[in-house]
Amino acid sequence: MKEYRFGTMEKGRRNLITDVPGVLVGHCTLSEGNVQTGVTAILPHAGDIYHEKCIAASHVINGYGKSTGLVQINELGSIETPLILTNTLSAGEAFTACVEYMLEKNEGICRGEGSVNPVILECNDSFLNDIRGLHVKKEHVFEAIAAAKEDFELGSVGAGRGMICYGLKGGIGSASRIFEIAERQFTLGALVLTNFGSLSDLVICGDHIGRRLSGEEEDPKGSCIMVIATDAPVSSRQLARIARRAQSGLARTGGYTSGGSGEIVVAFTTANRLLMSEQIRHPEILSDSVLNPLLRAAVETVEEAIVRSMLEAETVTGRDGNKLVSIRELAGE
Amino acid sequence: MKEYRFGTMEKGRRNLITDVPGVLVGHCTLSEGNVQTGVTAILPHAGDIYHEKCIAASHVINGYGKSTGLVQINELGSIETPLILTNTLSAGEAFTACVEYMLEKNEGICRGEGSVNPVILECNDSFLNDIRGLHVKKEHVFEAIAAAKEDFELGSVGAGRGMICYGLKGGIGSASRIFEIAERQFTLGALVLTNFGSLSDLVICGDHIGRRLSGEEEDPKGSCIMVIATDAPVSSRQLARIARRAQSGLARTGGYTSGGSGEIVVAFTTANRLLMSEQIRHPEILSDSVLNPLLRAAVETVEEAIVRSMLEAETVTGRDGNKLVSIRELAGE
Amino acid sequence: MKEYRFGTMEKGRRNLITDVPGVLVGHCTLSEGNVQTGVTAILPHAGDIYHEKCIAASHVINGYGKSTGLVQINELGSIETPLILTNTLSAGEAFTACVEYMLEKNEGICRGEGSVNPVILECNDSFLNDIRGLHVKKEHVFEAIAAAKEDFELGSVGAGRGMICYGLKGGIGSASRIFEIAERQFTLGALVLTNFGSLSDLVICGDHIGRRLSGEEEDPKGSCIMVIATDAPVSSRQLARIARRAQSGLARTGGYTSGGSGEIVVAFTTANRLLMSEQIRHPEILSDSVLNPLLRAAVETVEEAIVRSMLEAETVTGRDGNKLVSIRELAGE
Amino acid sequence: MKEYRFGTMEKGRRNLITDVPGVLVGHCTLSEGNVQTGVTAILPHAGDIYHEKCIAASHVINGYGKSTGLVQINELGSIETPLILTNTLSAGEAFTACVEYMLEKNEGICRGEGSVNPVILECNDSFLNDIRGLHVKKEHVFEAIAAAKEDFELGSVGAGRGMICYGLKGGIGSASRIFEIAERQFTLGALVLTNFGSLSDLVICGDHIGRRLSGEEEDPKGSCIMVIATDAPVSSRQLARIARRAQSGLARTGGYTSGGSGEIVVAFTTANRLLMSEQIRHPEILSDSVLNPLLRAAVETVEEAIVRSMLEAETVTGRDGNKLVSIRELAGE
Repeated sequence: MKEYRFGTMEKGRRNLITDVPGVLVGHCTLSEGNVQTGVTAILPHAGDIYHEKCIAASHVINGYGKSTGLVQINELGSIETPLILTNTLSAGEAFTACVEYMLEKNEGICRGEGSVNPVILECNDSFLNDIRGLHVKKEHVFEAIAAAKEDFELGSVGAGRGMICYGLKGGIGSASRIFEIAERQFTLGALVLTNFGSLSDLVICGDHIGRRLSGEEEDPKGSCIMVIATDAPVSSRQLARIARRAQSGLARTGGYTSGGSGEIVVAFTTANRLLMSEQIRHPEILSDSVLNPLLRAAVETVEEAIVRSMLEAETVTGRDGNKLVSIRELAGE
Repeated sequence: MKEYRFGTMEKGRRNLITDVPGVLVGHCTLSEGNVQTGVTAILPHAGDIYHEKCIAASHVINGYGKSTGLVQINELGSIETPLILTNTLSAGEAFTACVEYMLEKNEGICRGEGSVNPVILECNDSFLNDIRGLHVKKEHVFEAIAAAKEDFELGSVGAGRGMICYGLKGGIGSASRIFEIAERQFTLGALVLTNFGSLSDLVICGDHIGRRLSGEEEDPKGSCIMVIATDAPVSSRQLARIARRAQSGLARTGGYTSGGSGEIVVAFTTANRLLMSEQIRHPEILSDSVLNPLLRAAVETVEEAIVRSMLEAETVTGRDGNKLVSIRELAGE
Repeated sequence: MKEYRFGTMEKGRRNLITDVPGVLVGHCTLSEGNVQTGVTAILPHAGDIYHEKCIAASHVINGYGKSTGLVQINELGSIETPLILTNTLSAGEAFTACVEYMLEKNEGICRGEGSVNPVILECNDSFLNDIRGLHVKKEHVFEAIAAAKEDFELGSVGAGRGMICYGLKGGIGSASRIFEIAERQFTLGALVLTNFGSLSDLVICGDHIGRRLSGEEEDPKGSCIMVIATDAPVSSRQLARIARRAQSGLARTGGYTSGGSGEIVVAFTTANRLLMSEQIRHPEILSDSVLNPLLRAAVETVEEAIVRSMLEAETVTGRDGNKLVSIRELAGE
Repeated sequence: MKEYRFGTMEKGRRNLITDVPGVLVGHCTLSEGNVQTGVTAILPHAGDIYHEKCIAASHVINGYGKSTGLVQINELGSIETPLILTNTLSAGEAFTACVEYMLEKNEGICRGEGSVNPVILECNDSFLNDIRGLHVKKEHVFEAIAAAKEDFELGSVGAGRGMICYGLKGGIGSASRIFEIAERQFTLGALVLTNFGSLSDLVICGDHIGRRLSGEEEDPKGSCIMVIATDAPVSSRQLARIARRAQSGLARTGGYTSGGSGEIVVAFTTANRLLMSEQIRHPEILSDSVLNPLLRAAVETVEEAIVRSMLEAETVTGRDGNKLVSIRELAGE
């Protein structure tokens, strides 16, 4: 396949969400016969997340989804746990695993300090995976968290193992952009879990490749989880503005967000962490008048991350012999 | 204590949410030493909820809470599972239990049909309960569902076992109202799980009883789950309007919704169930011009249900000898 | 009538929204025969509001209302004009007047700088006022702005001239509270425009006075505008949390927010003004963990302001001889 | 310029929003020297809109805008006036004109019946138009309403007279699609008022034409109003889902929704009109499971309408000699 150029902004060093300093990503992949699923964990930073919360926001593009934790993100504008991505029916198990992980690290939770808000994000991988078997267990969540690092794999890994994107193999994608505001350099990165769309709709950088590859229009089910991270000092209100641009990035790849799609965005910044001891904070915050590079970067990284989730995927055969071909295999590479 | 009269509308036969025909409530109570917790299940009807979904809406008064399922309620305007109430840290286990319950009853979930959206509602019972021990297990959820019936207990039972309301023993409360619209009689009921407030703020029917009973103002932590059911034929948009009145009912009891309170409302109607086979539906829907009895009933039932959760509660001693006195015991009854 | 004590917090010096330093309020009252209406202007500060915007938030309790400007408040979290209160059908004229006022003071608007977002808040005073005659003109808005001062009148004045509250004469009310956070003293004040409720529902400090004064339950139409100001350094997200407590304050006065009521809240802080020249701001912001005094003050001030709008009102006879008695007259004072 | 094919669905007869039976559109164009502005009116039907309200929803993509009426649309899920589009600073005058128009047709407004909710939608045309001169008067609104018809002009007309899109001449665009659901044929149409974007970003059907036409990236200010109409029987909740797809249509044309852009969507259906006399309604409503054609049509029509607003525009010279070239002129046609 030809080289594609997504947008106009400069990419980060790895072109991954982990180009945002401190952000780490880990996978636990389950791949055996009918079990093609997994967990992906995003750590907003390597420290004590509960006591150094990150400012955050969420946005629902289409709410056919079962993600947890958004209510509290919206109220308090912060996250306090790793973000856990997995399959839909395992969201409860991932919630419990996240609770246990946080309890183990924080004796004060529900004992003098507040409770804890696990953020679990999910898509339905039932075509390739025996999702009804509930094969994701707590240890898989712990493994994904423990595996978190800066250089992580894309494609058919972690929570993306069983996912289907534009009728082909999807999964985990990522991209990043760097830009200057007020003479300082910042980074914004996206990580997506892709599980939506019909092949005939696929567009890459304006190329309606899906029309060439596809026989006919299929019913586009599925979902897309989009996580955006930045080190720019923005408020939760501003992060919500940034999160809303994810829809534009997704739309550039041809999707129209069908009614059965759970398209959920979580955005956070690593700047201005919330220390629980502070009564009065003294953050620095960008003016809304200079946000445009962040808004554009959100569109570009989500667009590129979605396509990369396909370009980096490998063909997977799973439940009952169901098979999803990678776009590279389909294109004869 | 004297007899209180809440509002002006006529009560239903049992003065319970189950006065709405078809609605059932079941508890599973865990009460042994440090373990003072439980599960309460609300069945919107006794039939196949997944294939006869109920029109629903949610509303967040203050989002310091970890409830699941609200995203999809907001998008699709419906619920498709029992509503499960439990303690905060057990929401994940309850999610998984609800998934297993639904999978067992519906072979088509994630196999030809869509996925399933568990609605788990929670409060933090850590004062009386060893919440960090995660003592709620899947079987407790199954037990609560299996126990669902029209005549259910209030007070220190089910999910309410360990809860604290206005500094005294809270838990499960309920109330109902009947009214006429367009010459037809309808019912609206509320069920609440109370876990908020400081005693000095407590007001019952205008009586500032809390000021008499309390020495000083405490820090009001905690939360309140409010579920509203009706058999009136209303849309999800209208149910959202009804749900927003829950705050007014709560406010009448003296609470001001402190920043650490997770105050969440779910409202549903048993009318106009959504059959998955229909492409075009023919519901009957009330005009917005005649909604007032429902709006008033929402205020009255939530107010009364909150107070009843206290009046019906018994004193409980739990974790580390922590003790919550019932208001009746405090009042010398 | 007896002395009432609203809540437990300490009042500000004047018990007016203008106890928040810098906030000014002015009225222009039209009172002649069938014309009983007016304009009330709230200046967030006496300086150049467009270039020193105030951080703000809005909240809709029940959206049967025609207020303008909320869309941009929600997006940018700020206000940049005086807040103008008037009757429903004159909101357009007030919008235009606010535009002209801002254009006259700011040559850069739509010429090098951005456009301007007039915030017009309204209630329907058609019972006493010939609202269809559109008697509010631009000069009345200019007069209200010019009249802005710290000591302003309550009751049947300004935009409140023709309003009806709980079946009696309503209008403009206000109250304030002072409190300490992190060893510093702050103020929160509310100004309300009351035009809602039926007399039988009226409650003052727990006293169901409406039941004594009223023969029967009437249909509660109408609306309530609630403006909250503070000098505490809070974000727009936090102001939205504060604004949501207005419903609790209103509910304490007995209202249940009927379906035809436009109940709209705007909250702003005079701290951390947004200077258009700044690219990176360095505000101080309270932690969410210490917000409770602000939340409680919002409830108490809205409650008291609503009742004061009635206690300070005088009986008014207007359109077609329609007459609204003041509560003091009804109580024989 | 070459022929473009937008999407895959079948177009309506005129490829205009007026392909939805009953919908009418009228313009009043002001074009003389420094005055290059106007009014566009959309009538949801030719009858008594106040007494036969249309079910509606609104959606804010980016709220840097001054549109009025959205609060009540969100609460009641309906519109009751023509939709009026004009320039930002004239929104107040258009509000008043809409009030006068409705009062003249409805003696009961604010006299026995409720008040009225004018929906005014706006963009800032200050580059070509002397917007500070407030040249739009009430009679221009009346003229636009009176001119409403099925065959209306696109491009530099009505409210679009002074607008700028992707650095070139924008204005009014429209498109429609027809589709079958449950063996019945329905239509969805969009009308847009385009005033956003920088030329380098412009994409038409995947062709990055803007990169060829533009020297460099400019600062993309401005806004976009998007109105969607359908005759499919959908609820206001479903119309909100449809309205949210407008962002995807806009994104396909290359825009990323900059921070200074007011991008507002209003969607309505002509089916199931709300008669004020009804207490219980019996609408037919599509199941959410069959909404996909409407969602896709919303994306396609908004995309095409935006591009058509440019393709149909003519070059305009206005205020202080400022000139906006049409894309056809730039392309040498």
